[in-house]
Amino acid sequence: MLQSLKIELIKTKKQKPAADQLGFGNHFTDHMFIMDYSVDNGWHNSRIMPYQPIVLDPAAKVFHYGQTIFEGLKAYKTDDGRILLFRPQKNIQRMNRSNERLSVPELDVELTIDVLKQLIAVDQDWIPTAPGTSLYIRPFVIATQPALGVAPSTHYQFIIIMSPVGAYYTEGVNPVKIFVESEYVRSVKGGVGEAKTAGNYAAGLKAQEIAKEKGYSQVLWLDGVHRKYIEEVGSMNVFFKINGTVHTPMLNGSILDGVTRNSIIQLLKHWNIPIEERPITIEELYEASRKGELEEAFGTGTAAVISPIGELNWQEEKLIINGGLTGELSKKLYDTLTGIQMGKVHDPFGWMVEASIVHA
Amino acid sequence: MLQSLKIELIKTKKQKPAADQLGFGNHFTDHMFIMDYSVDNGWHNSRIMPYQPIVLDPAAKVFHYGQTIFEGLKAYKTDDGRILLFRPQKNIQRMNRSNERLSVPELDVELTIDVLKQLIAVDQDWIPTAPGTSLYIRPFVIATQPALGVAPSTHYQFIIIMSPVGAYYTEGVNPVKIFVESEYVRSVKGGVGEAKTAGNYAAGLKAQEIAKEKGYSQVLWLDGVHRKYIEEVGSMNVFFKINGTVHTPMLNGSILDGVTRNSIIQLLKHWNIPIEERPITIEELYEASRKGELEEAFGTGTAAVISPIGELNWQEEKLIINGGLTGELSKKLYDTLTGIQMGKVHDPFGWMVEASIVHA
Repeated sequence: MLQSLKIELIKTKKQKPAADQLGFGNHFTDHMFIMDYSVDNGWHNSRIMPYQPIVLDPAAKVFHYGQTIFEGLKAYKTDDGRILLFRPQKNIQRMNRSNERLSVPELDVELTIDVLKQLIAVDQDWIPTAPGTSLYIRPFVIATQPALGVAPSTHYQFIIIMSPVGAYYTEGVNPVKIFVESEYVRSVKGGVGEAKTAGNYAAGLKAQEIAKEKGYSQVLWLDGVHRKYIEEVGSMNVFFKINGTVHTPMLNGSILDGVTRNSIIQLLKHWNIPIEERPITIEELYEASRKGELEEAFGTGTAAVISPIGELNWQEEKLIINGGLTGELSKKLYDTLTGIQMGKVHDPFGWMVEASIVHA
Repeated sequence: MLQSLKIELIKTKKQKPAADQLGFGNHFTDHMFIMDYSVDNGWHNSRIMPYQPIVLDPAAKVFHYGQTIFEGLKAYKTDDGRILLFRPQKNIQRMNRSNERLSVPELDVELTIDVLKQLIAVDQDWIPTAPGTSLYIRPFVIATQPALGVAPSTHYQFIIIMSPVGAYYTEGVNPVKIFVESEYVRSVKGGVGEAKTAGNYAAGLKAQEIAKEKGYSQVLWLDGVHRKYIEEVGSMNVFFKINGTVHTPMLNGSILDGVTRNSIIQLLKHWNIPIEERPITIEELYEASRKGELEEAFGTGTAAVISPIGELNWQEEKLIINGGLTGELSKKLYDTLTGIQMGKVHDPFGWMVEASIVHA
C-alpha cells in the first residue's frame, strides 16, 4: 500500500499564523492525507495532496447515520530539530477499537503511522515551537456510501488533517471551573462511550452550552444508570488526589481509554505515588473536601495535556479545590509530561517516536 | 426568505429506475434544496438546484462532532393525480426539537414546508405510483464550520434530498424476525435518544449486524438502566396486542416520538380499541405469550409504515407471535394508514396535506 503512496505538493504555501494567534484547531497545514475503502478493494488509493475540500454525495452515510470515528495526537519539534510523536501506536490502536464498535473497517497500525510520518515530513515547517504549542494531528474515517438504508457503509475515506495549536483552554494551565451535570447523560454501558466517535461529542454540546452560560469551562459527566459515579469531563479523563492517593474512574465501557490518562497512571506508579482506578461517587468527593482530604483535581487529555480543576459545582453547591490554585502534583505532572513530549526530560517509558525517520 | 428562493433546473433529466428496482434510498431525484446558516445572517441563500455533491472543508464539524439531525417523510401521488404529504408539520416540528437538543438553530416550520412543496413540484415525475411505493423525503442539517474545538458550529447547511422508494424491508408487509438485544444499548434517559440524530443510528449498527448474522431483520432495544423495559426497534416504534388491548412503550426521553406511532394511537382510539402507553418489560411479553394472551406485535415507522413482528429472540429463547403470520389488526392498520396516505381511504384526522398548492 505504502509503495503506491502518491504525493502531490502544493504550489504556493499558505501563510503561517503567529504563535500567539493559534488557538485550537482553527488553522490547517498545506497538505492532507486521504485513502479510500471499498468492500471490493479494501483500503486503497493512498495519497498526500494539498489541503482541500472533500466532495461527497448528499446521501453519504456520514451525514445521516454518523458512522465516523476520529483520533487526536500531537507532534513536537525539539530544540535540536527532531520531530517527536507521543505514543502514536496507542492512538491508532484505539482508532481500530472505535472502528470495531462502529462497524468501520480496521486500519493497518504500522502503515498508518508510516503515512502519518510522511505527511508530517511534508508539512514539518508547520510544527510550532513556542512554549505550549504543538502540531495537532486529526486522523478520521467517514462513511461515504450514498444510501439511506440503515446499515454499515460499503465505502469509506480515511483522512488525516493537521493543525498548529496553542492551549486548548483559554485558561492555559491555570485551573478550570467544571459544572457537574445532573440532567444530561453522555453515555451508558453498552453504548459507544468508549469509542472516539462523533455522536458522543454531539450528545454533550447542550450541557456544555448551559455550563458555559453559568461561567464553567466544561461539564463533568455522571454515569447514566445511578447518576452518581464520576465518568469524565467533556474532553478529558479526570483524576482526584485524596489524602495522598490519586483516584481515577476505572475503565467501565462508557468512558474513553485516554492515552494521557494511561501515561499519567504510569508516571504516578513510576514515582511510587499510590494510584487507584475504581468507581468514584460525586458525594465522596464532597465528603473528602469537607474532611479536608481532597487535595487536587485535574483533567487529562491530548488537547489540554493536564488541566487543573479549581472548582466543581454540583447541584448549586460549589466545591473549591486547593484554594482554586494549581496543585503541586498537577504542576509536576504537567511539567514532566510536556518535558518528555518536547524531548527536554528523559523518557523512561519509550513513549516518544521520532517522526523524522520515514520508511520511504 | 421564500421570495428569494433561487431555482436552477437540471438540463438533462436522469433516467428513472423501474418500480421493482427501487429498494430504499438508493436512487435520488433530479433536484435538491439547500439553505445556509451563519451566526451573523441566520438561515439564508435558499436554492433548489440539480442534485449534486456537497463540498465541505475536511475540518467541518459534522465529520468530527456529529452535529447533524435529520427527518424522514413521504409524498404520494393519488390516482387522480394529486400529490399528498403525510403530516409534514409533525416532522418539521420534531426536527426543531432535535435541533434544540443538538444545539442546532431552529427552522421556520411553514417556510420549510413551502420549500418542500416547491421541491416536490419540480421533481413530481419522480413520485412512483406502483403499490407500496412512494417518494421518500430526507431533510437534514449538517454543521459546516471548519474548526476542531468542541463547541456548537457557527455555520450549517439545511438540505433536502428525495428518493423514490419501495418497501423498507425485503419482507415487505410480511412479518419480520426481531432479535432482543441484551448487551448493547441504544440510548438512555438524559441522552439524545429522542432526537433524530446520526449518532443514535451509528450506535445501533454493531448490534444490528450481529442480529443479521443470526437471521434477524432488526434488534429490539431494552432500556440502558434496568435492561428490561422495551424501548424501540432499530428504525421503528413497537406495539403489542395483549388480550385485546394494544400496548406501546411510553415516551420517556430515550425513544423516538414517531409520527406513525402517534397516528396509530389516534387510529386505535378512533376505533375504540384500548391503547395504553406505559413501561413494558420483556419478561411480561414472554409471560403473556405463555398464557396465550400475546396476540400481535408490530413496528411502526415512516420507512416501513407497519411491519408485523412474527418472532422475537431474547437470550436464545424464541417467541413466535400469531404463528409467525400477519395479525388481523396489523393488516387493518396497514391497509387503513396506507389507504389514507394514498388518498383512497377517508382521512378523518386531516393528516394529508396537498403538496400541489405552492405559494409561489
